[in-house]
Amino acid sequence: MGDEVKLFGMWASPYSRRVELALKLKGIPYEYIEEDLSNKSPSLLKYNPIHKKVPVLVHNQKPVAESLVILEYLDETWETHPFLPQHPYERAKARFWAKFIDEKLFPTVAKLRHMAGKEKEEAIEEAQQQLKIMEDELKGKQYFTGQRMGYLDIAANVLIWFRVVGELIGETVLTAEKFPLICEWIEKLMQIDAVNENKVPFR
Amino acid sequence: MGDEVKLFGMWASPYSRRVELALKLKGIPYEYIEEDLSNKSPSLLKYNPIHKKVPVLVHNQKPVAESLVILEYLDETWETHPFLPQHPYERAKARFWAKFIDEKLFPTVAKLRHMAGKEKEEAIEEAQQQLKIMEDELKGKQYFTGQRMGYLDIAANVLIWFRVVGELIGETVLTAEKFPLICEWIEKLMQIDAVNENKVPFR
Repeated sequence: MGDEVKLFGMWASPYSRRVELALKLKGIPYEYIEEDLSNKSPSLLKYNPIHKKVPVLVHNQKPVAESLVILEYLDETWETHPFLPQHPYERAKARFWAKFIDEKLFPTVAKLRHMAGKEKEEAIEEAQQQLKIMEDELKGKQYFTGQRMGYLDIAANVLIWFRVVGELIGETVLTAEKFPLICEWIEKLMQIDAVNENKVPFR
Repeated sequence: MGDEVKLFGMWASPYSRRVELALKLKGIPYEYIEEDLSNKSPSLLKYNPIHKKVPVLVHNQKPVAESLVILEYLDETWETHPFLPQHPYERAKARFWAKFIDEKLFPTVAKLRHMAGKEKEEAIEEAQQQLKIMEDELKGKQYFTGQRMGYLDIAANVLIWFRVVGELIGETVLTAEKFPLICEWIEKLMQIDAVNENKVPFR
Protein backbone atom coordinates (compact mmCIF):
# COMPACT_ATOMS: atom_id res chain seq x y z
CA MET A 1 0.00 0.00 0.00
CA GLY A 2 2.99 2.33 0.43
CA ASP A 3 1.59 3.46 3.76
CA GLU A 4 3.73 5.76 5.88
CA VAL A 5 2.91 5.33 9.56
CA LYS A 6 4.57 7.32 12.34
CA LEU A 7 3.85 7.20 16.04
CA PHE A 8 4.78 10.04 18.38
CA GLY A 9 4.92 8.41 21.80
CA MET A 10 6.53 8.38 25.21
CA TRP A 11 7.81 5.16 26.73
CA ALA A 12 6.14 5.52 30.15
CA SER A 13 2.70 6.53 28.85
CA PRO A 14 0.22 3.64 28.89
CA TYR A 15 -1.81 5.53 26.29
CA SER A 16 1.15 5.62 23.96
CA ARG A 17 1.86 1.95 24.71
CA ARG A 18 -1.67 1.03 23.65
CA VAL A 19 -1.02 2.28 20.15
CA GLU A 20 2.34 0.51 19.89
CA LEU A 21 0.73 -2.73 20.98
CA ALA A 22 -2.11 -2.25 18.48
CA LEU A 23 0.33 -1.60 15.62
CA LYS A 24 2.31 -4.71 16.53
CA LEU A 25 -0.77 -6.93 16.83
CA LYS A 26 -1.93 -5.78 13.42
CA GLY A 27 1.56 -6.17 11.95
CA ILE A 28 1.70 -2.60 10.66
CA PRO A 29 5.26 -1.31 10.08
CA TYR A 30 5.78 2.09 11.70
CA GLU A 31 8.38 4.63 12.66
CA TYR A 32 8.44 5.43 16.37
CA ILE A 33 9.37 8.90 17.56
CA GLU A 34 10.00 9.24 21.30
CA GLU A 35 8.84 12.59 22.66
CA ASP A 36 10.45 14.49 25.52
CA LEU A 37 7.33 15.82 27.24
CA SER A 38 9.32 18.54 29.00
CA ASN A 39 10.44 19.81 25.60
CA LYS A 40 7.81 18.83 23.06
CA SER A 41 8.82 18.66 19.41
CA PRO A 42 7.42 21.15 16.86
CA SER A 43 5.96 18.11 15.04
CA LEU A 44 3.96 17.02 18.09
CA LEU A 45 2.63 20.56 18.59
CA LYS A 46 1.74 20.75 14.90
CA TYR A 47 -0.01 17.39 14.81
CA ASN A 48 -1.89 17.70 18.11
CA PRO A 49 -2.40 21.45 18.66
CA ILE A 50 -5.46 20.89 20.86
CA HIS A 51 -4.06 18.63 23.57
CA LYS A 52 -0.31 18.78 22.78
CA LYS A 53 -0.08 15.20 24.05
CA VAL A 54 1.14 11.78 22.97
CA PRO A 55 0.16 9.47 21.40
CA VAL A 56 -0.31 10.87 17.90
CA LEU A 57 -0.46 8.54 14.93
CA VAL A 58 0.44 10.08 11.60
CA HIS A 59 -0.78 8.02 8.64
CA ASN A 60 0.30 9.34 5.24
CA GLN A 61 0.80 12.81 6.77
CA LYS A 62 -2.63 12.83 8.43
CA PRO A 63 -2.61 13.00 12.23
CA VAL A 64 -4.95 11.12 14.56
CA ALA A 65 -4.82 11.82 18.31
CA GLU A 66 -6.34 10.20 21.44
CA SER A 67 -5.43 6.55 21.98
CA LEU A 68 -8.96 5.10 21.84
CA VAL A 69 -9.74 7.08 18.68
CA ILE A 70 -6.50 5.77 17.17
CA LEU A 71 -7.46 2.15 18.01
CA GLU A 72 -10.77 2.54 16.16
CA TYR A 73 -8.98 4.19 13.23
CA LEU A 74 -6.45 1.37 12.98
CA ASP A 75 -9.22 -1.23 13.15
CA GLU A 76 -11.20 0.47 10.39
CA THR A 77 -8.14 0.97 8.17
CA TRP A 78 -6.29 -2.35 8.51
CA GLU A 79 -8.22 -5.61 8.39
CA THR A 80 -5.56 -7.81 10.01
CA HIS A 81 -6.33 -8.93 13.58
CA PRO A 82 -9.69 -7.13 14.07
CA PHE A 83 -9.88 -5.51 17.54
CA LEU A 84 -13.51 -4.65 18.09
CA PRO A 85 -16.06 -7.44 18.48
CA GLN A 86 -18.39 -7.98 15.52
CA HIS A 87 -21.73 -7.51 17.22
CA PRO A 88 -22.84 -3.91 17.91
CA TYR A 89 -23.82 -4.73 21.49
CA GLU A 90 -20.43 -6.27 22.25
CA ARG A 91 -18.77 -3.28 20.58
CA ALA A 92 -20.77 -0.92 22.78
CA LYS A 93 -19.72 -2.84 25.89
CA ALA A 94 -16.04 -2.73 24.90
CA ARG A 95 -16.26 1.04 24.29
CA PHE A 96 -18.09 1.56 27.58
CA TRP A 97 -15.41 -0.26 29.58
CA ALA A 98 -12.51 1.46 27.81
CA LYS A 99 -14.08 4.83 28.62
CA PHE A 100 -14.59 3.69 32.21
CA ILE A 101 -10.90 2.79 32.51
CA ASP A 102 -9.80 6.18 31.19
CA GLU A 103 -12.30 8.35 33.01
CA LYS A 104 -12.75 6.55 36.33
CA LEU A 105 -10.32 3.74 37.10
CA PHE A 106 -7.04 5.23 35.90
CA PRO A 107 -7.60 8.69 37.50
CA THR A 108 -8.45 6.98 40.80
CA VAL A 109 -5.24 4.93 40.83
CA ALA A 110 -3.04 7.69 39.40
CA LYS A 111 -3.78 10.01 42.31
CA LEU A 112 -2.73 7.42 44.94
CA ARG A 113 0.91 8.41 44.90
CA HIS A 114 0.05 11.90 46.10
CA MET A 115 -1.89 10.59 49.08
CA ALA A 116 -1.26 9.21 52.53
CA GLY A 117 -3.13 7.85 55.54
CA LYS A 118 -6.88 7.57 55.61
CA GLU A 119 -7.38 9.46 52.35
CA LYS A 120 -5.16 6.92 50.60
CA GLU A 121 -6.92 3.97 52.19
CA GLU A 122 -10.26 5.28 50.94
CA ALA A 123 -8.92 5.83 47.43
CA ILE A 124 -7.52 2.28 47.37
CA GLU A 125 -10.90 0.96 48.45
CA GLU A 126 -12.62 2.94 45.70
CA ALA A 127 -10.15 1.64 43.09
CA GLN A 128 -10.66 -1.92 44.31
CA GLN A 129 -14.43 -1.59 44.05
CA GLN A 130 -13.96 -0.48 40.45
CA LEU A 131 -11.47 -3.26 39.73
CA LYS A 132 -13.95 -5.79 41.12
CA ILE A 133 -16.28 -4.80 38.27
CA MET A 134 -13.49 -5.40 35.74
CA GLU A 135 -12.68 -8.74 37.43
CA ASP A 136 -16.30 -9.83 36.98
CA GLU A 137 -16.11 -8.93 33.28
CA LEU A 138 -13.40 -11.58 32.82
CA LYS A 139 -15.51 -14.45 34.22
CA GLY A 140 -15.61 -17.30 31.73
CA LYS A 141 -13.45 -15.46 29.20
CA GLN A 142 -9.90 -15.80 27.91
CA TYR A 143 -9.64 -12.10 27.20
CA PHE A 144 -11.88 -9.11 27.80
CA THR A 145 -12.73 -9.17 24.10
CA GLY A 146 -13.44 -12.93 24.18
CA GLN A 147 -11.25 -15.60 22.59
CA ARG A 148 -8.46 -13.26 21.45
CA MET A 149 -6.82 -9.98 22.41
CA GLY A 150 -8.90 -7.08 21.24
CA TYR A 151 -9.82 -3.46 21.78
CA LEU A 152 -10.62 -3.70 25.48
CA ASP A 153 -7.57 -5.87 26.23
CA ILE A 154 -5.40 -3.19 24.65
CA ALA A 155 -7.20 -0.40 26.52
CA ALA A 156 -6.91 -2.42 29.74
CA ASN A 157 -3.11 -2.34 29.47
CA VAL A 158 -3.22 0.15 32.34
CA LEU A 159 -4.11 -2.78 34.61
CA ILE A 160 -0.65 -4.22 33.92
CA TRP A 161 0.74 -0.88 35.00
CA PHE A 162 -1.31 -0.98 38.22
CA ARG A 163 0.03 -4.44 39.02
CA VAL A 164 3.66 -4.30 38.04
CA VAL A 165 4.57 -0.66 38.57
CA GLY A 166 2.12 -0.52 41.48
CA GLU A 167 3.96 -3.24 43.37
CA LEU A 168 7.33 -1.62 42.72
CA ILE A 169 6.19 1.65 44.23
CA GLY A 170 4.30 -0.01 47.06
CA GLU A 171 0.81 0.68 45.71
CA THR A 172 -0.57 -2.81 46.12
CA VAL A 173 -4.01 -2.21 44.68
CA LEU A 174 -4.24 -5.10 42.26
CA THR A 175 -3.39 -8.15 44.35
CA ALA A 176 -3.57 -11.76 43.10
CA GLU A 177 -5.64 -12.68 46.15
CA LYS A 178 -8.40 -10.20 45.42
CA PHE A 179 -8.22 -10.21 41.62
CA PRO A 180 -7.18 -13.70 40.44
CA LEU A 181 -8.78 -13.38 36.98
CA ILE A 182 -7.16 -10.03 36.17
CA CYS A 183 -3.80 -11.34 37.36
CA GLU A 184 -4.16 -14.50 35.22
CA TRP A 185 -5.07 -12.27 32.28
CA ILE A 186 -1.89 -10.22 32.87
CA GLU A 187 0.21 -13.43 32.96
CA LYS A 188 -1.39 -14.54 29.70
CA LEU A 189 -0.73 -11.18 28.07
CA MET A 190 2.90 -11.28 29.13
CA GLN A 191 3.35 -14.45 27.06
CA ILE A 192 2.29 -12.67 23.88
CA ASP A 193 5.36 -11.43 22.02
CA ALA A 194 3.85 -8.06 21.10
CA VAL A 195 2.99 -7.36 24.73
CA ASN A 196 6.29 -8.63 26.00
CA GLU A 197 8.33 -6.52 23.57
CA ASN A 198 6.18 -3.69 24.70
CA LYS A 199 6.27 -4.00 28.43
CA VAL A 200 9.32 -1.85 29.16
CA PRO A 201 7.55 0.53 31.54
CA PHE A 202 5.99 -2.45 33.27
CA ARG A 203 9.26 -4.12 34.31
CA MET B 1 -38.26 -6.04 13.79
CA GLY B 2 -40.31 -5.97 17.00
CA ASP B 3 -37.60 -3.88 18.65
CA GLU B 4 -38.29 -2.56 22.12
CA VAL B 5 -36.36 0.65 22.74
CA LYS B 6 -36.46 2.59 26.00
CA LEU B 7 -34.55 5.69 26.93
CA PHE B 8 -33.93 6.71 30.53
CA GLY B 9 -33.23 10.42 30.34
CA MET B 10 -33.53 13.78 32.05
CA TRP B 11 -34.89 16.81 30.20
CA ALA B 12 -32.11 19.24 31.11
CA SER B 13 -29.19 16.90 30.35
CA PRO B 14 -27.57 17.63 26.98
CA TYR B 15 -26.20 14.08 27.03
CA SER B 16 -29.68 12.67 27.34
CA ARG B 17 -30.89 15.08 24.63
CA ARG B 18 -28.26 13.76 22.26
CA VAL B 19 -29.79 10.32 22.36
CA GLU B 20 -33.35 11.62 21.89
CA LEU B 21 -32.22 13.61 18.89
CA ALA B 22 -30.40 10.59 17.45
CA LEU B 23 -33.47 8.36 17.89
CA LYS B 24 -35.65 10.95 16.17
CA LEU B 25 -33.24 11.47 13.28
CA LYS B 26 -33.11 7.73 12.71
CA GLY B 27 -36.89 7.43 13.06
CA ILE B 28 -36.66 4.78 15.78
CA PRO B 29 -39.82 4.51 17.93
CA TYR B 30 -38.98 4.57 21.63
CA GLU B 31 -40.42 4.90 25.08
CA TYR B 32 -38.99 7.79 27.09
CA ILE B 33 -38.65 7.54 30.85
CA GLU B 34 -37.86 10.80 32.65
CA GLU B 35 -35.59 10.26 35.64
CA ASP B 36 -35.63 12.30 38.84
CA LEU B 37 -31.90 12.50 39.52
CA SER B 38 -32.47 13.31 43.19
CA ASN B 39 -34.40 10.04 43.50
CA LYS B 40 -33.11 7.66 40.85
CA SER B 41 -35.34 4.78 39.82
CA PRO B 42 -34.40 1.17 40.62
CA SER B 43 -34.36 0.56 36.83
CA LEU B 44 -31.72 3.25 36.24
CA LEU B 45 -29.55 1.83 39.03
CA LYS B 46 -29.97 -1.67 37.62
CA TYR B 47 -29.17 -0.68 34.04
CA ASN B 48 -26.24 1.64 34.81
CA PRO B 49 -24.78 0.37 38.09
CA ILE B 50 -21.35 1.84 37.30
CA HIS B 51 -22.16 5.50 36.74
CA LYS B 52 -25.83 5.60 37.90
CA LYS B 53 -26.38 8.31 35.29
CA VAL B 54 -28.64 9.14 32.36
CA PRO B 55 -28.81 8.54 29.48
CA VAL B 56 -29.28 4.79 29.33
CA LEU B 57 -30.69 3.17 26.21
CA VAL B 58 -32.33 -0.21 26.72
CA HIS B 59 -32.71 -2.15 23.48
CA ASN B 60 -34.60 -5.45 23.83
CA GLN B 61 -33.74 -5.51 27.56
CA LYS B 62 -30.03 -4.86 26.96
CA PRO B 63 -28.69 -1.60 28.43
CA VAL B 64 -26.16 0.72 26.78
CA ALA B 65 -24.81 3.71 28.74
CA GLU B 66 -22.72 6.80 27.87
CA SER B 67 -24.17 9.06 25.19
CA LEU B 68 -21.33 8.75 22.66
CA VAL B 69 -21.27 4.98 23.03
CA ILE B 70 -25.04 4.96 22.48
CA LEU B 71 -24.68 7.05 19.28
CA GLU B 72 -22.24 4.51 17.84
CA TYR B 73 -24.52 1.65 18.88
CA LEU B 74 -27.54 3.23 17.20
CA ASP B 75 -25.54 3.88 14.05
CA GLU B 76 -24.32 0.29 13.90
CA THR B 77 -27.74 -1.18 14.61
CA TRP B 78 -30.09 0.98 12.48
CA GLU B 79 -29.08 1.86 8.94
CA THR B 80 -31.45 4.83 8.48
CA HIS B 81 -29.74 8.26 8.50
CA PRO B 82 -26.12 7.14 9.06
CA PHE B 83 -24.39 9.41 11.59
CA LEU B 84 -20.69 8.69 11.27
CA PRO B 85 -18.86 9.68 8.09
CA GLN B 86 -17.88 6.82 5.79
CA HIS B 87 -14.14 7.36 5.62
CA PRO B 88 -12.10 6.13 8.62
CA TYR B 89 -10.14 9.40 8.80
CA GLU B 90 -13.31 11.50 8.89
CA ARG B 91 -14.74 9.11 11.49
CA ALA B 92 -11.61 9.54 13.63
CA LYS B 93 -11.93 13.33 13.39
CA ALA B 94 -15.58 13.25 14.42
CA ARG B 95 -14.76 11.02 17.40
CA PHE B 96 -11.83 13.24 18.37
CA TRP B 97 -13.99 16.39 18.43
CA ALA B 98 -16.86 14.76 20.30
CA LYS B 99 -14.39 13.63 22.96
CA PHE B 100 -12.93 17.14 23.04
CA ILE B 101 -16.39 18.64 23.65
CA ASP B 102 -17.09 16.26 26.52
CA GLU B 103 -13.69 16.32 28.17
CA LYS B 104 -12.53 19.91 27.59
CA LEU B 105 -15.08 22.35 26.26
CA PHE B 106 -18.16 21.40 28.28
CA PRO B 107 -16.33 21.16 31.64
CA THR B 108 -14.76 24.59 30.99
CA VAL B 109 -18.14 26.24 30.34
CA ALA B 110 -20.02 24.28 33.02
CA LYS B 111 -17.79 25.65 35.76
CA LEU B 112 -18.42 29.30 34.78
CA ARG B 113 -21.52 29.67 36.91
CA HIS B 114 -19.53 28.99 40.04
CA MET B 115 -16.99 31.70 39.25
CA ALA B 116 -16.67 35.45 39.46
CA GLY B 117 -14.24 38.27 38.65
CA LYS B 118 -10.85 37.56 37.16
CA GLU B 119 -11.12 33.79 37.50
CA LYS B 120 -14.33 33.86 35.46
CA GLU B 121 -12.82 36.14 32.80
CA GLU B 122 -9.93 33.73 32.37
CA ALA B 123 -12.27 30.74 32.11
CA ILE B 124 -14.36 32.55 29.47
CA GLU B 125 -11.21 33.28 27.50
CA GLU B 126 -10.16 29.64 27.70
CA ALA B 127 -13.61 28.51 26.52
CA GLN B 128 -13.53 31.01 23.66
CA GLN B 129 -10.12 29.77 22.54
CA GLN B 130 -11.55 26.26 22.44
CA LEU B 131 -14.69 27.41 20.64
CA LYS B 132 -12.53 29.15 18.04
CA ILE B 133 -11.19 25.73 17.11
CA MET B 134 -14.73 24.41 16.69
CA GLU B 135 -15.63 27.51 14.65
CA ASP B 136 -12.74 26.77 12.28
CA GLU B 137 -14.00 23.20 11.86
CA LEU B 138 -17.22 24.56 10.32
CA LYS B 139 -15.47 26.56 7.57
CA GLY B 140 -16.88 25.59 4.18
CA LYS B 141 -19.31 23.09 5.68
CA GLN B 142 -23.08 22.92 6.17
CA TYR B 143 -22.73 20.74 9.25
CA PHE B 144 -19.81 19.46 11.29
CA THR B 145 -20.36 16.06 9.67
CA GLY B 146 -20.49 17.63 6.16
CA GLN B 147 -23.65 17.90 4.06
CA ARG B 148 -26.04 16.52 6.66
CA MET B 149 -26.48 16.31 10.43
CA GLY B 150 -24.36 13.54 11.82
CA TYR B 151 -22.52 12.24 14.86
CA LEU B 152 -20.55 15.39 15.64
CA ASP B 153 -23.54 17.68 15.08
CA ILE B 154 -25.46 15.63 17.62
CA ALA B 155 -22.55 15.63 20.07
CA ALA B 156 -22.14 19.39 19.54
CA ASN B 157 -25.68 19.99 20.84
CA VAL B 158 -24.02 21.37 23.95
CA LEU B 159 -23.06 24.42 21.86
CA ILE B 160 -26.79 25.24 21.57
CA TRP B 161 -26.92 25.03 25.34
CA PHE B 162 -23.95 27.42 25.63
CA ARG B 163 -25.67 29.92 23.38
CA VAL B 164 -29.29 29.82 24.44
CA VAL B 165 -29.09 28.89 28.11
CA GLY B 166 -25.84 30.83 28.36
CA GLU B 167 -27.48 34.08 27.30
CA LEU B 168 -30.38 33.56 29.67
CA ILE B 169 -28.10 33.18 32.63
CA GLY B 170 -25.75 35.92 31.52
CA GLU B 171 -22.88 33.67 30.42
CA THR B 172 -22.27 35.22 27.03
CA VAL B 173 -19.51 32.94 25.87
CA LEU B 174 -20.78 32.03 22.43
CA THR B 175 -21.50 35.40 20.78
CA ALA B 176 -22.59 35.82 17.16
CA GLU B 177 -19.84 38.42 16.66
CA LYS B 178 -17.04 36.06 17.62
CA PHE B 179 -18.54 32.81 16.36
CA PRO B 180 -20.67 33.53 13.28
CA LEU B 181 -20.37 30.03 11.81
CA ILE B 182 -21.37 28.24 15.00
CA CYS B 183 -24.31 30.61 15.44
CA GLU B 184 -25.43 30.03 11.84
CA TRP B 185 -25.15 26.30 12.45
CA ILE B 186 -27.37 26.65 15.55
CA GLU B 187 -29.97 28.59 13.52
CA LYS B 188 -29.90 25.88 10.87
CA LEU B 189 -30.31 23.13 13.46
CA MET B 190 -33.27 24.91 15.02
CA GLN B 191 -35.11 24.60 11.69
CA ILE B 192 -34.85 20.81 11.77
CA ASP B 193 -38.02 19.35 13.29
CA ALA B 194 -36.22 16.76 15.37
CA VAL B 195 -34.00 19.42 16.93
CA ASN B 196 -36.85 21.81 17.44
CA GLU B 197 -39.06 19.24 19.15
CA ASN B 198 -36.09 18.51 21.24
CA LYS B 199 -34.94 21.92 22.32
CA VAL B 200 -36.99 22.29 25.52
CA PRO B 201 -34.03 22.95 27.80
CA PHE B 202 -32.66 25.39 25.24
CA ARG B 203 -35.65 27.75 25.31
